[in-house]
Amino acid sequence: MTMRLPHTIFVAFVCAALSSTTAFAASPGGVDTAFVESRYAEAANRIITRALSDSTAFERLAYMCDTFGPRLSGSKNLENALRWIEKTMKSDGLDNVRSEPVMVPHWVRGSESLVLLEPRRSGLLMLGLGGSIGTPPNGITAEAIVVRDFEELERRRDQARGKIVVYNPPWKGYGRTVQYRTRGAIEAAKAGAVASLIRSVTPVSLQTPHTGMMRYHDSIPKIPHAAITLEDAAMLERMHRRGQKIVLTLRMEAHTLPDAVSHNVLAELRGTEKPDEIIVMGGHIDSWDVGDGAMDDGGGCIAAWQAVKLLKELGLRPRRTIRVVMWTNEENGMRGGLEYFDAHKEEVSKHLLAIESDAGVFKPRGFGLSGNDTIRAVVKAVARLLNSIDAGEITDHGGGVDISPLMRAGVPGMGLRVHGEKYFWYHHSPADTVDKLDPHEMNLCVAALAVMAYVVADLPESWF
Amino acid sequence: MTMRLPHTIFVAFVCAALSSTTAFAASPGGVDTAFVESRYAEAANRIITRALSDSTAFERLAYMCDTFGPRLSGSKNLENALRWIEKTMKSDGLDNVRSEPVMVPHWVRGSESLVLLEPRRSGLLMLGLGGSIGTPPNGITAEAIVVRDFEELERRRDQARGKIVVYNPPWKGYGRTVQYRTRGAIEAAKAGAVASLIRSVTPVSLQTPHTGMMRYHDSIPKIPHAAITLEDAAMLERMHRRGQKIVLTLRMEAHTLPDAVSHNVLAELRGTEKPDEIIVMGGHIDSWDVGDGAMDDGGGCIAAWQAVKLLKELGLRPRRTIRVVMWTNEENGMRGGLEYFDAHKEEVSKHLLAIESDAGVFKPRGFGLSGNDTIRAVVKAVARLLNSIDAGEITDHGGGVDISPLMRAGVPGMGLRVHGEKYFWYHHSPADTVDKLDPHEMNLCVAALAVMAYVVADLPESWF
Repeated sequence: MTMRLPHTIFVAFVCAALSSTTAFAASPGGVDTAFVESRYAEAANRIITRALSDSTAFERLAYMCDTFGPRLSGSKNLENALRWIEKTMKSDGLDNVRSEPVMVPHWVRGSESLVLLEPRRSGLLMLGLGGSIGTPPNGITAEAIVVRDFEELERRRDQARGKIVVYNPPWKGYGRTVQYRTRGAIEAAKAGAVASLIRSVTPVSLQTPHTGMMRYHDSIPKIPHAAITLEDAAMLERMHRRGQKIVLTLRMEAHTLPDAVSHNVLAELRGTEKPDEIIVMGGHIDSWDVGDGAMDDGGGCIAAWQAVKLLKELGLRPRRTIRVVMWTNEENGMRGGLEYFDAHKEEVSKHLLAIESDAGVFKPRGFGLSGNDTIRAVVKAVARLLNSIDAGEITDHGGGVDISPLMRAGVPGMGLRVHGEKYFWYHHSPADTVDKLDPHEMNLCVAALAVMAYVVADLPESWF
Repeated sequence: MTMRLPHTIFVAFVCAALSSTTAFAASPGGVDTAFVESRYAEAANRIITRALSDSTAFERLAYMCDTFGPRLSGSKNLENALRWIEKTMKSDGLDNVRSEPVMVPHWVRGSESLVLLEPRRSGLLMLGLGGSIGTPPNGITAEAIVVRDFEELERRRDQARGKIVVYNPPWKGYGRTVQYRTRGAIEAAKAGAVASLIRSVTPVSLQTPHTGMMRYHDSIPKIPHAAITLEDAAMLERMHRRGQKIVLTLRMEAHTLPDAVSHNVLAELRGTEKPDEIIVMGGHIDSWDVGDGAMDDGGGCIAAWQAVKLLKELGLRPRRTIRVVMWTNEENGMRGGLEYFDAHKEEVSKHLLAIESDAGVFKPRGFGLSGNDTIRAVVKAVARLLNSIDAGEITDHGGGVDISPLMRAGVPGMGLRVHGEKYFWYHHSPADTVDKLDPHEMNLCVAALAVMAYVVADLPESWF
């Protein structure tokens, strides 16, 4: 792949002679796109060039995934990976590297299986859903009823009692389809079902089950809840529509242990003039317990880390502090984001911008921003520096689960946006592995994060 | 989807008034495209219209897959499916429905597992390859060496002794990549390896292992041979290149029992004038023991069956006999095709054309033909009747494994060609299931097979 260089590169070489202070003195109040271009184009170009010539982020992601495996909250894998991250961040020479303890839910899958007994005997691939209870040791054997959606379940409510409800909703995008995962067990239990199964929340399958979070309601009996593949959901629906009696045995050892200690890991590039003012940036380091959590969200974490490492190596230390955070427990508790907010309550008002990368480090498009007109104008001006790598698009609405407590407190929130057409093919499945990512595309994400964080962290006060 | 109707349909209505005999009398010797058009356009159109309005083939395929499961040679599943086919063909009123016994290899997978012990403990997805021996009951535990290709194995031959050889060849198309499956165990054993693993033979994976046939050589020690996923092959290669020690335990119960009895199932639409002259058409009814063998090749079998059923229902009985055959044991022995040849030796010379459909019943393109100029001209003239459904392309070279003994004896061989871009995504894997096929596309295949077989079977003698 070739990269177009910003046409301002030559202008930038001239401007680079100006010192930081001089440049600020010369800048007008408010947003001035020409100023951003003249002041930061050279730095942006150095960042981009360096990001694209250094595959450390991808290599570290692969090393982490290969060495520690998936990183479910409460697991040794996660804490081993976090210890390696902290140690490696220190060896990178980053500032204030530290682990902050976070109590996290500790759900354990255990052994699990699903067997079709009638109309023919066959083992079916499945994944229990996060937070589900288990079955008795011998499992639950029951007839199945297959429905397309909650409306069909409601219409056929009298047929669901004592049965296993199988939801086979067609894929209508994640937002509309995921409800069967989150509240499928509640609705099935309301109808008297003894367990529930969902078609995995994905548009594409090669017999690949996808896990993810599910919920119970205190006033509704808890029943085991698991995902099956698109293939088997379609098969069960065909059998059911044909009038064939379906009998299944679901066995799950899933259980929830007392909360465990995990950690948010933080590192900084301390600001030169306003070190107490913070641009926070990161992803969630925990994952589900299948695949490697390479895409969701190991890649986002390590891209943010690499962005800061790269700025340090280039000697680009901004006026404000850039803090990179590996938030823990996004997947099944959000405790990392909540604990970060609590532990840093005193400095929340000092957070100028929070950036999360949790959409997979595929080829970047730009950022989605939730914030007022002032920060939007700033970010749009900065994003022009990313046009050379086609990553300068700023869209409405953005953020991330981990930064949502900050955002609720008024901190502008931004999410890295990418070409994630295949994101849900891999999401929460055994197929979320390193090979789904491309080193060059990941480096483009590093470049986008580094340029955005650096320039925003370095801009004059008058702009905010 | 809309279908373009042949522009000749109105002409055809006029010509339909002519009787079959009259039409022949009027036809010139040799190939006459205009004659085909005038004589058969109306019939072709009736076939196509009917094929596209009748989803019996897809429903039967789904029923067979759902009810009997995968159909490995030697399995009860296969024989149960064959009994259902024979019974249903009889209830369709087809002629001379019968089962012809075939002795087939009886390989049994048994239980199997692959565990990564170092550098971290993790179960890996795998599928033993067809014909492989098993391991001792406690498995084979050994260090692994990862190579890209046979050349690298040769260069590093001294490092392979006592190890498990993992082949991670990049996908370069089926023909170039499958050699690691077929002769990987031989080459690894030559180097002193104790077992061998291959990257599954597919361009795309969602943690999906693919099985398939492998070979041993009498003079080389037999070692267990299995496929792993693209994801895990890539991971093992990364670990290996990084210098991490890889230790695996491979456990396989695979073994080969004495040959078992299977069957070719045949049905006919007997010819009106030359019943001893035969157009034979079909696919292979056996499959691997994972997925449902819906694409490879249940769909091809049932499409051919449906083509004949449909001709019968339309009252389109050609002058010659169309024979549909569900050949057994294509996957791991080819015994069905060989036995058909032997059992029908007397009438081989009466086979005018052999058609196999074994490329998945995706949207058809046309046919690939291996045969002389005479049959090529005939088939090309007939194929024009399929232009209305974009299935009229005749290319060089075609046939199929099951019809290859006939072809070696001089019978022209033809294979249905389809838009099979995703064929190898599913091939020999748990993802070869009914949902990968589309009823409309399957019906287009039925139409193409029915038109081709009917018209060739009905043409004047002078054309051959």
